[in-house]
Amino acid sequence: MDLDAPPWAVEMLRTARVGRLATAGAGGQPHVVPVCYVLAGDRIYSAVDAKPKRTQNLRRVRNVVENPRVSLVVDVWDEDWSRLAWVMAEGTAGILTSDMERAPALAALVAKYPQYAAMDLPAVAGAVLAITPARVVAWRATP
Amino acid sequence: MDLDAPPWAVEMLRTARVGRLATAGAGGQPHVVPVCYVLAGDRIYSAVDAKPKRTQNLRRVRNVVENPRVSLVVDVWDEDWSRLAWVMAEGTAGILTSDMERAPALAALVAKYPQYAAMDLPAVAGAVLAITPARVVAWRATP
Repeated sequence: MDLDAPPWAVEMLRTARVGRLATAGAGGQPHVVPVCYVLAGDRIYSAVDAKPKRTQNLRRVRNVVENPRVSLVVDVWDEDWSRLAWVMAEGTAGILTSDMERAPALAALVAKYPQYAAMDLPAVAGAVLAITPARVVAWRATP
Repeated sequence: MDLDAPPWAVEMLRTARVGRLATAGAGGQPHVVPVCYVLAGDRIYSAVDAKPKRTQNLRRVRNVVENPRVSLVVDVWDEDWSRLAWVMAEGTAGILTSDMERAPALAALVAKYPQYAAMDLPAVAGAVLAITPARVVAWRATP
């Protein structure tokens, strides 16, 4: 793990169950949705999965094609604000096209989410995003 | 409430305790952080508050000045994916400058968050963002 971030932040990126992925198309309109993802090595993978969608031609995918810059945030919410924390990974994303790249990414997602195993993700996955973080920003209320 | 969204989605925007706000500067790099916010009338307000920050000159604020387009998402996470839901409000944001605009926005934030009352938010608030949603996208696994 080569992410330049404190150990607690890397651990949070590794274990959080949901992230929020921000993309922006060429026109500069940000788009943000919750995503399942996995940190594997120093990359972050997220798949267009088989959860019901309004369309499979997703904005997040179109945006990444137009503008590869993305940010993913994971955070801890608590009504006790002394427990708040968040970690944002900024970087560039691409769509994995070869099976040689997709297979290990999908395997890592299945290993993290039993729900993906149950739906046989590798068989039903759409686009797989790979994010290479360029910078990690970590914040917590209580250092 | 004039938001063009199903009632459950408006209710979720009204009651969720934390949102994730995506902005992008002129260069197109998205930025996303968890934020406290309040839906009041048909606008969404969020303040740079007194939680410890690395700097008060925040990226989200600089980005909004460069590019007013923003998105805010609220969501429900559950390991039972039949319970997943999210609501994204896309629109434009501005920084409130006059006390006449800031005061009611800060009062709405204090009314939603007792934590803000305890820290006397109106006295300590920095920039106050006002988001005017142009479009709301709502999704849930179980319609």
